[in-house]
Formats: sequence, C-alpha cells, structure tokens
Amino acid sequence: MSNNGIYGEIKKFALTTDLYQIIMAAAYFSSPYHRERKTIGIFEMFIRKLPKNRSFIIVAGVEQVIQYVMNLHYDDEQIAYLQSLEVFKDINKEFFDYLRRFKFTGSLWSVPEGTVLFPNEPIMRIEAPIIEAQLLETYILSIINFQSLIATKAARIVSAATHKPVVEFGSRRAHGPQAGILAARGAYVGGCVGTSNTLAGKAFGIPVFGTMAHSFILSHENELDAFKEFNSMFPTGFLLVDTYDTLKAVTKLVSSGIRPYGVRLDSGDLWTLCMETRKLLDNAGCKDTKIMVSGDLNEHSISKLLADGAPIDCFGVGTELSTSQDSPTLNGIYKLVAVKIRNPDNNNGKYEMLYKSKTSVGKETYPGPKQIGRLIKGNVLEKDYLILESEKLPDKCILLLKRYVEDGNKVLEMPSIFEIQNYCSKQLGLLPEALKSLDVESVLFPVVLSQKIKSLGYPHDPS
Amino acid sequence: MSNNGIYGEIKKFALTTDLYQIIMAAAYFSSPYHRERKTIGIFEMFIRKLPKNRSFIIVAGVEQVIQYVMNLHYDDEQIAYLQSLEVFKDINKEFFDYLRRFKFTGSLWSVPEGTVLFPNEPIMRIEAPIIEAQLLETYILSIINFQSLIATKAARIVSAATHKPVVEFGSRRAHGPQAGILAARGAYVGGCVGTSNTLAGKAFGIPVFGTMAHSFILSHENELDAFKEFNSMFPTGFLLVDTYDTLKAVTKLVSSGIRPYGVRLDSGDLWTLCMETRKLLDNAGCKDTKIMVSGDLNEHSISKLLADGAPIDCFGVGTELSTSQDSPTLNGIYKLVAVKIRNPDNNNGKYEMLYKSKTSVGKETYPGPKQIGRLIKGNVLEKDYLILESEKLPDKCILLLKRYVEDGNKVLEMPSIFEIQNYCSKQLGLLPEALKSLDVESVLFPVVLSQKIKSLGYPHDPS
Repeated sequence: MSNNGIYGEIKKFALTTDLYQIIMAAAYFSSPYHRERKTIGIFEMFIRKLPKNRSFIIVAGVEQVIQYVMNLHYDDEQIAYLQSLEVFKDINKEFFDYLRRFKFTGSLWSVPEGTVLFPNEPIMRIEAPIIEAQLLETYILSIINFQSLIATKAARIVSAATHKPVVEFGSRRAHGPQAGILAARGAYVGGCVGTSNTLAGKAFGIPVFGTMAHSFILSHENELDAFKEFNSMFPTGFLLVDTYDTLKAVTKLVSSGIRPYGVRLDSGDLWTLCMETRKLLDNAGCKDTKIMVSGDLNEHSISKLLADGAPIDCFGVGTELSTSQDSPTLNGIYKLVAVKIRNPDNNNGKYEMLYKSKTSVGKETYPGPKQIGRLIKGNVLEKDYLILESEKLPDKCILLLKRYVEDGNKVLEMPSIFEIQNYCSKQLGLLPEALKSLDVESVLFPVVLSQKIKSLGYPHDPS
Repeated sequence: MSNNGIYGEIKKFALTTDLYQIIMAAAYFSSPYHRERKTIGIFEMFIRKLPKNRSFIIVAGVEQVIQYVMNLHYDDEQIAYLQSLEVFKDINKEFFDYLRRFKFTGSLWSVPEGTVLFPNEPIMRIEAPIIEAQLLETYILSIINFQSLIATKAARIVSAATHKPVVEFGSRRAHGPQAGILAARGAYVGGCVGTSNTLAGKAFGIPVFGTMAHSFILSHENELDAFKEFNSMFPTGFLLVDTYDTLKAVTKLVSSGIRPYGVRLDSGDLWTLCMETRKLLDNAGCKDTKIMVSGDLNEHSISKLLADGAPIDCFGVGTELSTSQDSPTLNGIYKLVAVKIRNPDNNNGKYEMLYKSKTSVGKETYPGPKQIGRLIKGNVLEKDYLILESEKLPDKCILLLKRYVEDGNKVLEMPSIFEIQNYCSKQLGLLPEALKSLDVESVLFPVVLSQKIKSLGYPHDPS
C-alpha cells in the first residue's frame, strides 16, 4: 500500500516536537551521570482518565508511529536551525553530530491497532537509549491521541447507525489538512465504511466516496438541468436535493423520469423530509433509490432518527466525527516508568533496572514496565489485569502488548487497514452491554492492579 | 522566511480534498452548459454563526491559503490514482489532461490576517473558472477554520493573562503533527509570545521555548542532581519542580545555592503553590527567579489565578489552546454567490453576472460578491456594513477585503508573522468592552446588511 501521501514527509516532520525534548536530549547527551551509566529509558504511553462521555478508547495510529520511529532522522537544514537558537549556543558540536547520525535502535511494544483499552493501561512501551526514547514523545502522543480519539468517536456513531453505512465527511472541519487525512483513517478503524478525503483513499487504501455540493446545483440555471447533467455522467451518484426546497426537488426529479441511484438530504427537519422523500420515490417506482442523510449529525441524532423509523440508507458525518466535537481531546501521556543503568565502576555489561514514577498530587504514575492481561469469558470482556512485565500472567488471559520493533528492526508485520477494522469490530463486540451505551458517564470497566504494582506504590524522591 | 516546514508538501496535499470536488470538476469540465458559457464561479468563505462562547473570530491562515492557491497542481501519480477509482471509469481522458495542466488563473480577495470578524462577513472571495474555484474549497476551509479557531482562542487566553506572556504548549494534544504546527501559528497570531513546537519556529520564524519534562528529573537518582546538571547546561532554563513534592523541591533547590532563572509548576493547587514558592524564592534572595505555570490551564483558570493575586510571571497553555477545547470547531463554509457567464450565441467576450444563493431552511446564504465596510469611532469598532461589491461604501468606512491574487498572480505582499500579530493586537484593542468579556454568550456585534442585499433576498430556483 502506498504511503506517500503522508509518510513521505517524516523527514520534514523531525522537528515537529516540543523544543524541550531536544533540550533534554542535549542534557542527557552531556550528562556525566547518564554517559557513565549508558542509561536506557523505558517509557509508557497511556491515558490517565477517559474523555468525557466515553467508557473506553480504541487505539489507532500505531502504524504511523512505527513508520515514524523507523524513519526519524535530522538533516543538515534542521540541525542548522537548532544551532541558530539561543538556547543551544553553548551546546557542544558533538551533540549535533549525534543528531545528524540519529537512528532509533530500541524496542517498541504496542497493543494492536483497533484494541479497546481503558485508563492506566499502556498503549505503547518504548525501551531505548534515553535520548532516543525521549525524542519520540511529542510525535507519538500527537498521532495516537488524535487517531484514537476519532476511532473512538467513530465507533459510537457507527454503533448508533446500527447496520447502516457511515461515511466520514469532515475534512473541512478537521484541524487542518493532515488532521483530515488522519481523521479519515481513525474513522475507518472505528467502523466507518469510507471517507470523502481523497488523499486518505490514496494513502491508506480506504474506500472514498463523493456526492455533489450545492454549488453544482447553483451553478446551473435551474436545478433539474443540474440533476440531469450530473446523473448522465455519474449514474451511481447521489443527487443533493436540498439546495432550494427538498420535496419540490424530489418531485421534479422523479417526474422528469430520472431514476436516481441515490439522493442526499443535508438540512431541515430530516425525519419528516426522509419520510416524505421515501414516499415520493416509492410512488414514482424508485424503490431502489437510496436516501443518504448528512448535516451536523452525531451519534445521538442518528440514534433518534433511526429509533423514530426514518427510512435512511446511509449517513455522511463530518464536523462532529472528525473533531470528536463533544469531547475533542484525548489526554494520553508518555511517562518514564523505569531506567536501566550500568554500574559505572563495574563495566561487565549487566544492566540494573530502577523503577520510576511521578508523585505530583493528582498526576501520580505507576512504576515499572507493564503488561495487560485480558480475561474474556463467554465472548464478553470480563476484566483486565495490569501487571508488571516480569510477573506471571493470570490464568486464561491474553497478553495485549506485542513487540513490533526490536533493537531498531521491525519484527512484526503490520496488519492491513481492513484487518485492523475487522479486529476493532470484534473488540467492540466483546464489550459488556453497559459499556456499549451512548450515555456512559459512570460506567467503569474493571482494571485490576497486580499486588506487586500496588506494593511498589509511588516511590518518592530519595534525595 | 523559510516555509519548507509545511509548505513543501503542497504538491503532496493536492488530493487532500473531498472527492466530490473532483467529481464536480469532472462534471463542470464536460458540461455543455458550462463549456458554452465559460462559467466563472464566485465563491465566498464565511461563518454562519459564532462558535459557542465567542463574540468574534480572528481570521488566520490566509498566508497558507495563498501558498496553496499559487502552487496547487496534480502529478501523474495522483492522477493515476483518480483514474483507478470506479467513479471515474467513464470519464473522458481530456479531464485528467486538464488536471495535469491545472494552474490557478483567478483572483482571490481576503481580509488581512489577524482581522476581527463576525458572522456572514466574507473572510475570502475567490473568482475563477468554476472548476478552479470549486477545487480549492476543502483546503481553504480546513486551513482557515482551524487557524482562525486557534487564533480566536489564543486571544481570549492572552487577554485573561493581562500582561503576562503566554506560550503555546499543545502539540501533543493537537489533532496530529501538522495541527500542532498550525496551532502554534494561530496562537501566535492571537497574541501568544511563542510556542514549544520546534518546526513552527523554523517554518514561521515564531519564537520557540522549551523547559524540561518530569522524565528528566526521574531519570536521575535524585531531583537535586537533575536540577544541578540541567542548570549548569541551561542557566536560563526553567526547572520543573513538581515531580515529587513542589515545595520540598524549591527548598532543596535554593538551599543548594542554585539561583534558578525560572521554575515551572505543572500540578496541584497552583495558587497556594505559587504563593509559597514565591516566598521560598524571595527569602532565599532569588527575587528575580520567574515562576511559570502550566497544566490544563484555560482563560478562566488563568483569570482566576491572577485575580487572586498569584505571583505568576508566565503561562504555558497546551490542550485547551491547541484544540480550542471548549469550542473545538469553526463552521466556516464556502458558497457560490454568483456566476459570470458568456452568452453562448453572442461570443463578444462580455460576461453577465447571475447572483446565486441557497434557500435550504436554516442554511440560507446571501447572494452576490460582497464587501465589508467597517466604521471605527474614537478607537472603537462601531459597526460593519455588509454591502455588494458594486455598492457605494458608506462614509468613513474602511474596506476590509483586499485583492491578494489577480489572474493567477500575487499582487499584494503578505505581511510578516510579527506584523500580523501586531495588527491583530490592534484589532482586538478596537473591540467594544462588551465583546472583550470572557463570558459572551449573548453579545452580538452590529453587522448592517445593505438595502440592496436585503432586497435581493434569497432568490428561489426558477425551474
């Protein structure tokens, strides 16, 4: 599958990171403490709490992260820019030479894309020389936070639409052109049948859909001429019938003898208009003509339309989906959970692991590299166990974190986007009924902390 | 100023558009109606209503739109992808040859970046052969909607912070890596002093800032060693003091003899911690040490902290700013307001203008190419007049829309990002007091519709 659409620019995106990552990299590089110990950092990405109105998240964006990790490097122009910054004026040239040679040499574990996950469960773990692991933070967070946010929202909308197809239409309201592409991918993972974003189609192989806009109708001297012309060129297209008066348009359309493949309604009282449109179509013998509905839809309005029996065949959802409007941020974080250091006085190559955790009030983190053991009973998620990687897995559990990159090499093939969507759909099928509800303010899935993690508590600063 | 950071990829972004734009382009291309009339389309971009909690918007992203318009073209690989799509299987090869030769030949008017604007006022107007104007829609909306959203949010936050500097810190929560870059630019337009996003610094010349993360502290065996090491390398850096216990950390720090340039507090009861930290610093003779505060801040929490007298020198604002979390979408639209057509029977080159407007219930648009006349009295915005371009400007008004591109050529130089920020700051200074309030649910600025626009009403479909 061609990835030129967005991956070609990873080189250009090397500096899409918080400056403090590069400042810390310079500090690690020159640190006598870390140089002597050849410190390996172990970082985990996870969310502390669920976004508003959500009872789970769907992880998406893993493929983009791995592409980034495998391809990140810094070119001369980027390094020259860094060297021009006041903050780096006293930093030794060796650090910039290091950046020029940068290549990720560590390991990356991740849950598979499309996995349903809960707070405090690691989405990813990175183990690498501490500079390398530190430099990845911003990009990883940015990719996973956003695609997972959208995949999660899409799952809600697709669930509300029951068996009707939902197409992602939100590129014009997504947070910039690239967000539109990434939203299309996240939405597909979460269950949409496709997107209107053409580049997302090209880059990811996602099905692309397009109808027509009001401007096409307006550009003609009358509506019917526009319909006729469009329909003769695109006989399987959806005709947009709400530019002037929806029911008049449908009447004109069927009276003219056109048997449209589909019509799209984008405004007004959608329930009434769908009912009346269906009648007009059926009475004219256009029983196969599909009705697509769009226009500021979300999971709640879709659910209501269908519960009220609106005869809708498919949905186009834009703004609310591609920005996750009711809950527009996923607060995933990337935290140091352990370091491995060599004894500087005894260079026999053996590393010692030290667990690490923050104790800031309200922002505490659990120490140590972790795994998730998932228990499924009778095709329903029963509970998850959060354990240290070194602990024994409880009986009958599935391990969720898999190693995708080892010592800088990809060791696990990525599934196709179709396989990811399929896996995600199965994951959603395993959710307990209470978590499937659209109104989920207070539902919490049980994630059981191992005794060992509990006993470690939050170690305080020893100084 | 180097734009390689994000502009280099415009070629790659040619397909970052809704597929229906390309479908309609194919239909216009083959349309006997439009071919005979050589139809020119006139589109305007505007918002129908204000986002929640906003009483104005600040326009941002104009420079990116003009870069896009001047550079958009389609390469062979992109065209091959389009030709591979089922929807285009019967479309004549001539259309794809046209796309291969595509170059924008029309004109673009825009209000200057940083302008304060209100609903129904055109942000931009495009006049071009209808295919060209149509193909620009998705990208223009995506860029202007997002950057304006963030510039507007930034203006609120900066206003709440009174004279204290605000740095944009939100790349990890922005909607993908490019959104982080664009958010940094929008935030700068709206008044932030800079960003943590390194590429935004390189691409736009915006000041970049960076402190340190908890991982740097955690990676050392004790906090004080980490402070010492960092401070010796970056003596003007901000030390992050909340990894374990904020006040203990500050005490350790000043007792060790370090006189930090600044400290950053990122969690806990910020008011109490700021007061106590300031006392500890002052008592240790560190009166010049600055206090920076961050951690899920927004305009309301900043306003409250300062009103309560918290001794804060600067703010880092991330998630809430870079996603405009309380109001995460700007619903800008791009609508056909007129066409110019040649009489097919009398090819004397004269064009006739036909006004166009939608009449969909709740989504009506005003016809005709428009201008904005702005009346300022005694350094305060008094009112705006929305007039047809052909109408006489009311007395003492300033015209807001300027032509940046004429017949495919740039005819107006873009201001620098510093000039844009400065202009925006002056615009904000002109706002009536009621509109400056952070709590603005019901404040509406008077935009007066000209008699001529009112009399045109919403023309209905003549068929």
